[in-house]
Amino acid sequence: MKTLTEVIRPTTFIQSEKLSTYLGIDITIASETFQHTGSFKFRAAYNVALNVENDHLITASSGNFGQALAYSCKLLGKKCHVVMPETSAKVKIEAVRNYGAVVDLIDVKKVGREERVSQLIREFPKAYQASAYDDPLVIDGNSSLGNEIADYETDFDFVVVPVGGAGLISGISKGLCRMGSQSKLIGAEPKIANDAYLSLQAGKIIKNEHEPMTLADGARTVSVGKHNWEIIKDGVSEIIEVTEENIKQSLRHYFNYSNLKVEPTGALSLGAVLENSQKFKNKKICCVVSGGNVDTAIYKEILMENKTEASAM
Amino acid sequence: MKTLTEVIRPTTFIQSEKLSTYLGIDITIASETFQHTGSFKFRAAYNVALNVENDHLITASSGNFGQALAYSCKLLGKKCHVVMPETSAKVKIEAVRNYGAVVDLIDVKKVGREERVSQLIREFPKAYQASAYDDPLVIDGNSSLGNEIADYETDFDFVVVPVGGAGLISGISKGLCRMGSQSKLIGAEPKIANDAYLSLQAGKIIKNEHEPMTLADGARTVSVGKHNWEIIKDGVSEIIEVTEENIKQSLRHYFNYSNLKVEPTGALSLGAVLENSQKFKNKKICCVVSGGNVDTAIYKEILMENKTEASAM
Repeated sequence: MKTLTEVIRPTTFIQSEKLSTYLGIDITIASETFQHTGSFKFRAAYNVALNVENDHLITASSGNFGQALAYSCKLLGKKCHVVMPETSAKVKIEAVRNYGAVVDLIDVKKVGREERVSQLIREFPKAYQASAYDDPLVIDGNSSLGNEIADYETDFDFVVVPVGGAGLISGISKGLCRMGSQSKLIGAEPKIANDAYLSLQAGKIIKNEHEPMTLADGARTVSVGKHNWEIIKDGVSEIIEVTEENIKQSLRHYFNYSNLKVEPTGALSLGAVLENSQKFKNKKICCVVSGGNVDTAIYKEILMENKTEASAM
Repeated sequence: MKTLTEVIRPTTFIQSEKLSTYLGIDITIASETFQHTGSFKFRAAYNVALNVENDHLITASSGNFGQALAYSCKLLGKKCHVVMPETSAKVKIEAVRNYGAVVDLIDVKKVGREERVSQLIREFPKAYQASAYDDPLVIDGNSSLGNEIADYETDFDFVVVPVGGAGLISGISKGLCRMGSQSKLIGAEPKIANDAYLSLQAGKIIKNEHEPMTLADGARTVSVGKHNWEIIKDGVSEIIEVTEENIKQSLRHYFNYSNLKVEPTGALSLGAVLENSQKFKNKKICCVVSGGNVDTAIYKEILMENKTEASAM
């Protein structure tokens, strides 16, 4: 069995002259779009599947964590169940199946995702219930990206990271700390899903009442996780709220100026820079792109929305 | 002044499980989309600008070579003129200007591009007339990518490379040879611009009568260059003709399965694999993606053409 560092792909650092020139800000992109399964979630999922003793893992995910866990279990020869709503895009269901996992389709009007996971855990009592963010093994897995950023040739003033359940930013915080980095860590959260922003203001976890329907589907979490909160409450200097418009604008900027296909959640960090560009002038910024998996239809729609903005390439 | 190897970015190798699984073929992508100025042309342009004694370079290009030469001259503190048709996309003109070059706009109905370059050379007799492909310095610059492919952890059975003027494939041939690589080199050329295919059949350079209007605008050359021909006539084992439909399909496959934004010319190598997939079964393939610079409008149109094919990510 390969260790985490043997199996993960190093992040793709991209210094885009065009993007930096256009914005007048010194930006380096750390892109996880070419990580196994197309997002940083593989770092977390593999670390969980590698380190738990259980030979069977169960999770609920219609997104990146499901694919990441399925592929990790395939590599490690473990069994995997992924609970997904039966309304999930067929191609996403197929992707999880192609990685060898059993897809458990549910009618969310009849049974909740967590409830179904609990049923499965009762049915398979030796299985491990895997969380996409609220787990020390998830944080440890993601901390490998913090190491890579700290090791990079540039000492960044700011590292900007998308925030949903805070699995990624808490991991990066841990990695940067361990490496003695002086970079300030900034979270980027959708304005209409700003529970982490409110939590940092209040000094305690604040929950959204419902899953907010932001375009950044990786940030549709009701609240940050408890393990993640313990790290970010001190390790994150600020969380910037990003409008849906700036999420879309950032996705287009990456496409036009950096040849990079990102998913809306991955566009959050550049969105935070657009929200407050004065703060970032004359600083060295690392924008973390968490992943690139996005429905073609949604991507096309965002590209088309700005018809006057032609490609600069 | 930095040497070529100090300044170029290593190519981005991507092993896409999804793409390989979908096609049933073991493909590694070598992507130049994140190279300086967004295409492999920077390798060539920098090597030319670095090694000629002239402090002033002149070229005609509405595409990637113009941007690459402009940026190279900026880095080296040299003067640069780029002749472009006045009908070129404004953003492309701006991109060359932003890299610091003088853009010389012409009305192609009144003066040909080569004619205008000759006029400029008479006006600036100390300037160097830079060709995008037919120059040993171009070939040497591009050979650096051959070195990187030969150095990669996988010994490829086939390396598949887009062909226009043959600047890239002749460079890669030189690099692979120098490194003692046993990989077979295959060219990928648009079927409606198949002069290199015909040349290899005839054993001599065959020219197209007109610039063929393939979507792969980097392959709209009338013929391969003489210096390039001397290398490819022996160094390339085969040239595969690619239909416009397979160029578009490959662009979509990269988007859907590999999170990679490519330009139509960059999609040619995967297009060649689609043309003859039986040939590539159970082999290790390296598909070279030459660049990612494409007008947003053209890209959107290609993505939209296949409405039934949703994203697999």
